[in-house]
Amino acid sequence: MVEIDMGIPLEKVNEFSLKELLGMAIKAEIGAREFYKSMAANVEIETLRKKLEFLAGEEEKHEEFLRKLYAQSFPGEEIAFPKEHVGPELKPVAEKIKNVQDMLELIRWAMEAERIAKEFYSKLEEMTDDNAKKGLLRYLASMENTHYFILKTEYELLLDWEMYSQMMHVGP
Amino acid sequence: MVEIDMGIPLEKVNEFSLKELLGMAIKAEIGAREFYKSMAANVEIETLRKKLEFLAGEEEKHEEFLRKLYAQSFPGEEIAFPKEHVGPELKPVAEKIKNVQDMLELIRWAMEAERIAKEFYSKLEEMTDDNAKKGLLRYLASMENTHYFILKTEYELLLDWEMYSQMMHVGP
Repeated sequence: MVEIDMGIPLEKVNEFSLKELLGMAIKAEIGAREFYKSMAANVEIETLRKKLEFLAGEEEKHEEFLRKLYAQSFPGEEIAFPKEHVGPELKPVAEKIKNVQDMLELIRWAMEAERIAKEFYSKLEEMTDDNAKKGLLRYLASMENTHYFILKTEYELLLDWEMYSQMMHVGP
Repeated sequence: MVEIDMGIPLEKVNEFSLKELLGMAIKAEIGAREFYKSMAANVEIETLRKKLEFLAGEEEKHEEFLRKLYAQSFPGEEIAFPKEHVGPELKPVAEKIKNVQDMLELIRWAMEAERIAKEFYSKLEEMTDDNAKKGLLRYLASMENTHYFILKTEYELLLDWEMYSQMMHVGP
């Protein structure tokens, strides 16, 4: 059982400035990338590993987009990372994932993080006037939504471990 | 403008045997993989290329699953590939994609192919009694649905080429 800090509720987002929220978003993308990368390194199922590596790569790209957005919005200012965050704080996976229950739990947290990330970007979009920035935030929301479905598809099949392990050539 | 053979309508699926339909499905997965691989090779935008490579890898895995399903369902029998197919027949991309309109058109065809593939697997699931096979077909349907959304996300951003090209560092 993993202990997870669930962060501030989404409704509290309005109490922060756009600058603080972008800082939170960048921090969250770094956290998500580290999570997927470390999970990929600790999973032996090739299909799942490839999906996790793909997700890690996408989150890395998101971080880059957000840093650019930050630089455009607050030129010359260093990024401030607030201590608060939105949604479950994903921690890197430190050891081999040995059983399907742990795998399911990790995916469940990741799904929840993606679901909230999508809502978060939609909220940031609402707070933004500039059309180009709105477009980027909508794109990010849409990608996190896609990530949610990638994870959900795998999760649902993993629930039937007997079939999953047969299909993926797992075990002896 | 690409000419596309749209294949047999989904309603006609009932006129074929499960064996023929599995043959069609395997052929379609091979076609989709070749399409994504060739499109990835002819696209210069890194983010998009990575997505296409990911999709190609997934379709390759699908082919493998379907071959296994075929072998279990019709042991010892060689796969027969019917000349019919369901949904748009994706042809490999033979040259560098030079403008955004061509890119959009190709993605639109791929989206349509994924949408129909999802429906097709759902129909195959209905035609199948065995629970393990049903599970696999549901998984395939769910993955094609995810592919559809991956493409849709990219498509919608590509519609605003000015922003897209800025974000993706395209051009001089």
